[in-house]
Amino acid sequence: MTDSSVHALMQEAGTKARAAARVLAKTPSTVKNLALVAIAQGLIERQPEILAANAKDVALAKEKGLAPAFVDRLTVTPKILAAMAQGARDIAALPDPIGEITEVRVRPNGMKIGRMRSPLGVLGMIYEARPNVTIDAAALAVKSGNAAILRGGSEAFETNRILGEIVIQSLAKTGIDPTADRDFVGAMIRAKGLIDVIIPRGGKSLIARLENESQIPMIHHLDGICHTYVDEDADLDMAVSVTDNAKTQRFSPCNAMENLLVHKDIAVAFLPRIAAIYADKGVEMRCDERALTLLTAAGFNVTPATEDDWDTEYNAPVIAIAVVDDIDAALDFIARHSSGHTDAIITNDIAKADRFMREVDSGSVMVNCSTRLADGFEYGLGAEIGISTGKLHARGPVGLEGLTNLKYVVFGSGQLRQ
Amino acid sequence: MTDSSVHALMQEAGTKARAAARVLAKTPSTVKNLALVAIAQGLIERQPEILAANAKDVALAKEKGLAPAFVDRLTVTPKILAAMAQGARDIAALPDPIGEITEVRVRPNGMKIGRMRSPLGVLGMIYEARPNVTIDAAALAVKSGNAAILRGGSEAFETNRILGEIVIQSLAKTGIDPTADRDFVGAMIRAKGLIDVIIPRGGKSLIARLENESQIPMIHHLDGICHTYVDEDADLDMAVSVTDNAKTQRFSPCNAMENLLVHKDIAVAFLPRIAAIYADKGVEMRCDERALTLLTAAGFNVTPATEDDWDTEYNAPVIAIAVVDDIDAALDFIARHSSGHTDAIITNDIAKADRFMREVDSGSVMVNCSTRLADGFEYGLGAEIGISTGKLHARGPVGLEGLTNLKYVVFGSGQLRQ
Repeated sequence: MTDSSVHALMQEAGTKARAAARVLAKTPSTVKNLALVAIAQGLIERQPEILAANAKDVALAKEKGLAPAFVDRLTVTPKILAAMAQGARDIAALPDPIGEITEVRVRPNGMKIGRMRSPLGVLGMIYEARPNVTIDAAALAVKSGNAAILRGGSEAFETNRILGEIVIQSLAKTGIDPTADRDFVGAMIRAKGLIDVIIPRGGKSLIARLENESQIPMIHHLDGICHTYVDEDADLDMAVSVTDNAKTQRFSPCNAMENLLVHKDIAVAFLPRIAAIYADKGVEMRCDERALTLLTAAGFNVTPATEDDWDTEYNAPVIAIAVVDDIDAALDFIARHSSGHTDAIITNDIAKADRFMREVDSGSVMVNCSTRLADGFEYGLGAEIGISTGKLHARGPVGLEGLTNLKYVVFGSGQLRQ
Repeated sequence: MTDSSVHALMQEAGTKARAAARVLAKTPSTVKNLALVAIAQGLIERQPEILAANAKDVALAKEKGLAPAFVDRLTVTPKILAAMAQGARDIAALPDPIGEITEVRVRPNGMKIGRMRSPLGVLGMIYEARPNVTIDAAALAVKSGNAAILRGGSEAFETNRILGEIVIQSLAKTGIDPTADRDFVGAMIRAKGLIDVIIPRGGKSLIARLENESQIPMIHHLDGICHTYVDEDADLDMAVSVTDNAKTQRFSPCNAMENLLVHKDIAVAFLPRIAAIYADKGVEMRCDERALTLLTAAGFNVTPATEDDWDTEYNAPVIAIAVVDDIDAALDFIARHSSGHTDAIITNDIAKADRFMREVDSGSVMVNCSTRLADGFEYGLGAEIGISTGKLHARGPVGLEGLTNLKYVVFGSGQLRQ
């Protein structure tokens, strides 16, 4: 497409979405929930069609020689489809956040002021070739009263075409437009006044590009460089099981631990125990000088860490390990290397737990549990649109609330400014 | 200065501010409050010096032929200085928002999750030649545990130099740097990773420029095109006094009403009454066809409104008036022309008040009171850094809370991801 036709398409989609946003903002819960249930039914009823369309996408992706992991994420199975349908039903069952009024106070002049939870308006969702995100994003947008422009990876085109039809038929008048194509991303991130927030989901290169180019605020997730600090006052058994889980329960998620920090006075007792587990599970250990000396002496096959290791999200069976002098050194290390996603301390000392909570500037700060628990479902949000590593608007796991804002509502009886 | 020296200065200021942010984030309330009281004392003790420096700035501004309103805002008097000092003391007296933990819930696995209010980090304040903003911004930043890079208008250079000294001496180690100069704005709005949020205060051209160019999220105020809709079920006397106050109590503030909408069935009773007041106070009335016909017949000297009038923030004794068929037409009008600042309805009908509250997408939505009341002090926030017309993070009047975020804090006892 030419630049001007992309621009025209964006204007049209944006204007339709802006109008749809006004309708959705006032749609009652029952209507939104019926639409979500209709989406779930549509997915089940049209299963053969969806699987056939998806097979075309998958065949093309294989023909192009795309990576097996990519093809894997693109593939829709009956089981995945059932999970997508259940996801839409689960979102229907959540409480409706819109219209809730909180913090109502009476001012001296008698006017009451409160805050009403409202939709953000038009969401711009940009994501890769994962068809389940199409349904997930549409369902969350509907429930939170937002219109959405969905731009899924072009490799999922045939699948998303059917999914888009199902959503549109289910919502009839909501204006969600899931048919935008690849050249559209550039137009979306410049569509000021048409889109209120860009929510990207995808690899680091996509996010980094959008972060540089977007003129619209984003709720986004950049890196997941998560730390666990094992304090001198940690329960040793707990430290071992938690740091095992944080690293090895799954290697690829963003909330898996990448850097393990250990207080110098507990290192001799702790490090050989966790190293035995990591060695057993095939986790490569990259160590600072003190950890290297200690673990080599204990007979482990470990390698020296480079400066880059402390800033690398491996998403793989690799861990970087450092021994630190005290909690101050741990906090300094985390301030330098954390990506602001999730960091944890293992300690039985209340004062140190308090300091860690207050001073670590990350979306999730944990005491005595696995970083793998930083997740919208584990937190009880009921849904998750992503995990934000930003510091404005929404931090950490983002559920429906992150797709809303609070406007002031003022109830007067003729009050004037004096 | 050359581009590279500006860049180096920004890097240095940003790195210092980032380090200061870590210190301020953990500074206890008592220490922050003592610093604020010291600022207040410094302003009073060094009054002669401040007034002398300000006299130089004012003389230079006059020499340059700057507008009287500009010179007026630049001028510091003993009374203004006393108000600045009192402002710092008032902020010291407010509750400290940082460290508060709310919404603590226990999850099925026994871990407790809550949300802790935390500083944003480094604020980038960009404002015009109003010396009082220097103290106001510094005081709000300190109280909310944020570091700040303050860039005041260059015309207030001498005044801000002294004020900066007072702040720095009062805070000693907090790293607030109020000495940045004019070329610095470009570097600030590109200082990703060094500044967390840009907060501009100033004229529309400044904000519009920053909105186009800033690569850092902003809390900002663009336009104040505020509406009052007088519904058919309004109390007539209240409608008259509120719309008088909203327009004429002061003309220049952003929360003054610019567009008055009137239901067709109350127009004959209402419009001549308010028009008599406006005519008396020298307010020029620009009317749509129906209002024009009605008011002309009633003997008033009114003019036709152009399309531009509905989108103009006059900040002057001018008002645009339209007659509408019903609340739907009023809501459509407001959706098209409101700047998302503050809009009000005058009605005694609960259902219409409810619809208006829910459907108007503005920072403040009011029933039965004057738009002039949309203000941090009137709302009881105790302080105001500005009024946001954005939809992410903070809406409406922004006090200390808008300079904070909520991070998740998780208290476990060894929980693992299953």
